[in-house]
Amino acid sequence: MITNSIGRKIPTTIQGYKEVIPYEGAFNRNPVGLIHGRALRKSDRLKRSKLLNTYSEVFEAVGLKDGMAISFHHHLRNGDKVINETVAALAECGYKDLTLVPTALFGVHKELIKYIESGVISCIYGSVNGPIGRKVTEGCFNRPVILRSHGGRARAMMAGDLKVDVAFIAAPAADCYGNMTGKMGKSACGAVGYAMTDADCAEKVVVVTDNLVPYPLAPASILQTQVDYVIEVDKIGDPSGIVSGTTKVTNDPARLKMGHFAAQLINASGLIKDGFSFQTGAGGASLAGASFVKELMEEKQTKGSFASGGITSYFIEMQKAGLFRTMYDVQSFDLHAVKSIGENVNHIEMSADMYANPHNGGCVVNQLDAVILGATEVDIDFNVNVNTEADGALLHGIGGHMDTAAGAQLTIIVAPLFRGRVPLISEQVLTVTSPGETVDAIITERGIVINPRNEELIERAKEQGLNVKSIEEMKDLGDKICGKQTSVELTDNIIGVIEYRDGTIIDVVRQPVSFV
Amino acid sequence: MITNSIGRKIPTTIQGYKEVIPYEGAFNRNPVGLIHGRALRKSDRLKRSKLLNTYSEVFEAVGLKDGMAISFHHHLRNGDKVINETVAALAECGYKDLTLVPTALFGVHKELIKYIESGVISCIYGSVNGPIGRKVTEGCFNRPVILRSHGGRARAMMAGDLKVDVAFIAAPAADCYGNMTGKMGKSACGAVGYAMTDADCAEKVVVVTDNLVPYPLAPASILQTQVDYVIEVDKIGDPSGIVSGTTKVTNDPARLKMGHFAAQLINASGLIKDGFSFQTGAGGASLAGASFVKELMEEKQTKGSFASGGITSYFIEMQKAGLFRTMYDVQSFDLHAVKSIGENVNHIEMSADMYANPHNGGCVVNQLDAVILGATEVDIDFNVNVNTEADGALLHGIGGHMDTAAGAQLTIIVAPLFRGRVPLISEQVLTVTSPGETVDAIITERGIVINPRNEELIERAKEQGLNVKSIEEMKDLGDKICGKQTSVELTDNIIGVIEYRDGTIIDVVRQPVSFV
Repeated sequence: MITNSIGRKIPTTIQGYKEVIPYEGAFNRNPVGLIHGRALRKSDRLKRSKLLNTYSEVFEAVGLKDGMAISFHHHLRNGDKVINETVAALAECGYKDLTLVPTALFGVHKELIKYIESGVISCIYGSVNGPIGRKVTEGCFNRPVILRSHGGRARAMMAGDLKVDVAFIAAPAADCYGNMTGKMGKSACGAVGYAMTDADCAEKVVVVTDNLVPYPLAPASILQTQVDYVIEVDKIGDPSGIVSGTTKVTNDPARLKMGHFAAQLINASGLIKDGFSFQTGAGGASLAGASFVKELMEEKQTKGSFASGGITSYFIEMQKAGLFRTMYDVQSFDLHAVKSIGENVNHIEMSADMYANPHNGGCVVNQLDAVILGATEVDIDFNVNVNTEADGALLHGIGGHMDTAAGAQLTIIVAPLFRGRVPLISEQVLTVTSPGETVDAIITERGIVINPRNEELIERAKEQGLNVKSIEEMKDLGDKICGKQTSVELTDNIIGVIEYRDGTIIDVVRQPVSFV
Repeated sequence: MITNSIGRKIPTTIQGYKEVIPYEGAFNRNPVGLIHGRALRKSDRLKRSKLLNTYSEVFEAVGLKDGMAISFHHHLRNGDKVINETVAALAECGYKDLTLVPTALFGVHKELIKYIESGVISCIYGSVNGPIGRKVTEGCFNRPVILRSHGGRARAMMAGDLKVDVAFIAAPAADCYGNMTGKMGKSACGAVGYAMTDADCAEKVVVVTDNLVPYPLAPASILQTQVDYVIEVDKIGDPSGIVSGTTKVTNDPARLKMGHFAAQLINASGLIKDGFSFQTGAGGASLAGASFVKELMEEKQTKGSFASGGITSYFIEMQKAGLFRTMYDVQSFDLHAVKSIGENVNHIEMSADMYANPHNGGCVVNQLDAVILGATEVDIDFNVNVNTEADGALLHGIGGHMDTAAGAQLTIIVAPLFRGRVPLISEQVLTVTSPGETVDAIITERGIVINPRNEELIERAKEQGLNVKSIEEMKDLGDKICGKQTSVELTDNIIGVIEYRDGTIIDVVRQPVSFV
């Protein structure tokens, strides 16, 4: 075991992991080497269609073998049918020992559990949400799953740390030569930013579509030059699970209060001025924060530069109202966003690399002024856990949390002071997702805690008379309500690795005794 | 010397050339190895601007050294100011022995001659048009220039055969973080397809703009993730030289006749049906061909798929009339095209890689039904020369000639039977640009010659009663008018290499005695 710069104990070697580099600060690692290039190919000019008829033909054509790594995107979210169907077809063809490299998994993917049990899937490098996360916590794999942020995953693929043999890309529309988009079709999902990096880096790329259109599909999000084969299926997804209708701001008073505090703090920071850039998640308190920021921007007649992230109807309204010039969208969160990205020239699809890769020429999160993020747990060093639950179960992915936290000038965490008698703030989080040095403030319904590292912000918040507390004060408030907590008892079995966006290891997840 | 598969004598080693691989047929070479990746970088999240003030700061920041390779695009054509200014700045800073890697050079670049003479520029890998071509023919360099097609250049960069240390990218609009586009600004040039590959492959990328806009410039053609530095200058170009007004169809009866023959042949081929795809150059006979094809399509109510290439007002009209769904544009040829690409969602910018690289997953030329191309000389084996003039001077680049000839199902060459008492057709062309096996027909004002390899086309043309001649008959017609030609006397000094699009050498250019 070695101890990284924030005191987390990391094994010196991890099975299935190239080289363990302990986390050494959010901005300290310098990458070495070249961007990973896939093998050069020759395109047969007489072969004007890449269509194959069956999954087994596809597997043979791409040279799929036991032990390979296969990737998928999660733009179809809980409506996705492609991962389950592809893995079922793989199982039917007798493949085993495959590493799944999804950008995320959802409840709908619980069907994969039987393929985990039968050895078709031998590990997962990617977010393991919900039922699959529970399965992982029960110790279903012989090696740990590796969790990466959206930017970190792009980095890892481009650095050759995360090698994908075959990317299967669900396509709401595609032509027979592989040009694809998520912007139209019965299974439209909007942006396909996470899949763009896979299309660029995977050794073989297969487009899976339920909406074959005449050549050429243009403009395309993923190009024919990147694609090896196309397969047509009945349905890539269930529209009801792909996107929700409109994302609505909460009515919950506690969440509204947190949103209000967040907006007050952003205002106090002085960032709300022409050129302001902003990102929030789609959670209730975050959107409440956005709604109060909107009011402030309208009041000040601020002309912002861009909003980014998963785009919601809320940001679309703000853009239409002239509050932002541009929306950078890596995944479209609701029906309005799906519609807008196909129509609005200022609604821009971006890849995961463009969004958040720390090892390119400069990603979008570097230009973010303020971001509002959530947490399942924070600690007195401002470290944030979004991966594990109070019982130690590894149920959530990283998303863009550590990317935006690191990139934005002002990173605000909003979360209720306690949930089900478990306080938000602990002495030390069970799992570190985003390091405290990248977090400026933690906001609960009881007030604002500012990281002592950001002296200027403390000063500004006090000048404005905001409800500022120390982390210890806020922790006490939660502890008083919830009472003494028993800590989760852990085994030595490492079930997950939390890779920081720069490729170092910020933490590992140990199996709780209660899940053995 | 070795002899390649079309009988051209090629040296076994060429100075400055990695490995000589003789041409072995248009579709035979299988690439090996990986796509070349540049070095991984770290973006400093606190550095929100990549702007530098002077060229000398830029040269220092990118680590420019004597002997390096620097690239430029030619989207500003004869209005370009960036190449001359950058090279002048390099000369002023005392740099020497630089290899210039332009996508093409124009008359305006004759200013470079003094930097060739003073040793600032020691060779050119790229098209050497006009005055620079004449200089090269006079033997100004110690090693041959290397000419590549648009697709071949993209291939060479992506295969790591053509390494660029610093790409200087002229940008009609850019933001301080490097996002750029050619679609707006006083120096707007439309598509910047040739520059896109440089932005992806060069070790360092510098954006040079005369139109700095607020961050973010989006949608962008080249992204911030690819760019290292930005410099603002007074003027990147002279609009009058960048694009012409409207490209007009010729009134010249000979050219109209050739265009008519070309359209007749395309019609006879049976390709004019729904899904038809088409490309022509902007030359008079080519556009005349397009105008007759347009009439045929209207008559048959054909719904074509795409037009590609350098896009002209002519194709824009056809697209608006519903004759093509999509225009794929690698460079916009006239003002209408520049305007259209910024407004029309079916007018799609494509990279040189997407356009024509034979070693990716499939380029656009592979999907072309018919292309009409020009020639300075053809021979009885249907080989085409577009590079050297009758006196042996190397005055023209390859452009997309060999790419589209190879990709299209029907490749038609149109050229007058003779020019200034020099016949079009010779026993053997002085320089092979596009091999005869990729050419289906040669059309002059006196009729149509079909390559005997395409038996079906001969059959169809005869059925339609077209004016078909053998290559020998057509050659005789020209010879009778022009009289006996004296062949150009050549030295052994190789001044140029004609690289085939797949990286093999199809021919070399020897210095004519008259230019020594």
